[in-house]
Amino acid sequence: MAQNIYDDKAFFEGYSQLPRQACGLSGAPEWESFRALIPDVRGLTVLDLGCGYGWLCRWARENGAKDVYGIDVSENMLSKARQFPTDSAITYLRADLETIELSPLAYEVVYSSLALHYLKNLPQLIAQVYQSLNPGGSFIFSVEHPIYTSPRDPKFVEVGEGRQVWLLDNYLKEGERRTNWFAEGVVKQHRTIGTYLTIILEAGFQVAAINEWGPSPEQIKDKPSWAEHRERPMFLIVKATKSDAQRA
Amino acid sequence: MAQNIYDDKAFFEGYSQLPRQACGLSGAPEWESFRALIPDVRGLTVLDLGCGYGWLCRWARENGAKDVYGIDVSENMLSKARQFPTDSAITYLRADLETIELSPLAYEVVYSSLALHYLKNLPQLIAQVYQSLNPGGSFIFSVEHPIYTSPRDPKFVEVGEGRQVWLLDNYLKEGERRTNWFAEGVVKQHRTIGTYLTIILEAGFQVAAINEWGPSPEQIKDKPSWAEHRERPMFLIVKATKSDAQRA
Repeated sequence: MAQNIYDDKAFFEGYSQLPRQACGLSGAPEWESFRALIPDVRGLTVLDLGCGYGWLCRWARENGAKDVYGIDVSENMLSKARQFPTDSAITYLRADLETIELSPLAYEVVYSSLALHYLKNLPQLIAQVYQSLNPGGSFIFSVEHPIYTSPRDPKFVEVGEGRQVWLLDNYLKEGERRTNWFAEGVVKQHRTIGTYLTIILEAGFQVAAINEWGPSPEQIKDKPSWAEHRERPMFLIVKATKSDAQRA
Repeated sequence: MAQNIYDDKAFFEGYSQLPRQACGLSGAPEWESFRALIPDVRGLTVLDLGCGYGWLCRWARENGAKDVYGIDVSENMLSKARQFPTDSAITYLRADLETIELSPLAYEVVYSSLALHYLKNLPQLIAQVYQSLNPGGSFIFSVEHPIYTSPRDPKFVEVGEGRQVWLLDNYLKEGERRTNWFAEGVVKQHRTIGTYLTIILEAGFQVAAINEWGPSPEQIKDKPSWAEHRERPMFLIVKATKSDAQRA
């Protein structure tokens, strides 16, 4: 299985303070861009891969989803999710996304926020997602952007006049990256945009949308430090669809 | 119209010495990856946008294309193309890709090698390409990779132990970039991968393949200096298809 850093005590204590956990979706700057790619979930069955505290599961229910399933490998995350008021239409399950088997034709919408860049064996999961979707279904995911995960030593340096440049290297060398982020040796998997999209296409999906997220002018006005994310993008958001041609 | 740098004398003299002009397709390191995305052209009508010396037009004929059209804005380029032995099935035309109108349902394959990053109004051309293709047709194009076009000051710097890093900034700020390459002030248009693919999807195409080109180990063995293209990709190659669902 992939490293389960979320059950590392020091990591989890730091991570829990992030706005995206403490404040939910409003604390995730890319949320509006992600949400814009999700179809109307009213009456649908929705699956959230790497559900964390369950913010996206609860969002689906608030927006009329019939049944929602949230899967996470981390017991810490799931026990946080279960502290929210009980909703019998939300089911949380602990499972490893590297090896999970999903029921066929079970969902209309599958999404995953910032989880897939931890997985070594992504094609296997994407094939599972494809067969678990009904024809016409949607799969929306975000990952750390390849430009962000690529470098041996990921950082900005100042090059005069306050200009910041991102030290990019190693882009086409895919595989493991270790960074220190709330804990030492957090392991991520670097893949190029081309590889993410090739995996999607080879599973049978159509690419429906791609967004290299950056903050809006309003967001930068509110949080000036976010301006750096326009110099090099931090998130990649992709929407893939399963053709409903079989039903035509 | 976009800058026609190819009719600048100093630029053209320098540019003509590049292996991809002097030696043809074998001098273009990304050619094998590009070729792999082109369908069998036997009996088909093919259009090459930004045909330059006509290498790709002649390649199509050598591989059995019925009729081939090569379009370029540069008189210098087209007169070079016309110096090759005459083939009455190849038609060269001078036109500006920013404003060209293409005949509807006229081609089965349209391709373009390293031309589209010069165009300001790309959506208009892509819409023209879409309506000029027959259902089931393919559009394959390469551009300078957005990571390559993005920086204010595009260059590698050494950061010790012989490691080279690419100074990336400005990635989400699309628009004009001026570089000095055989001539001062060569104007290119920077777009993100997301924008290239969004333009393709909004025109009605399906994304069929995407390749962020890098040299193979064999190519690096042959030309060690190309190793830097694995640190940051230089070319982006995309294949888009027009659905043949209308014929089903």
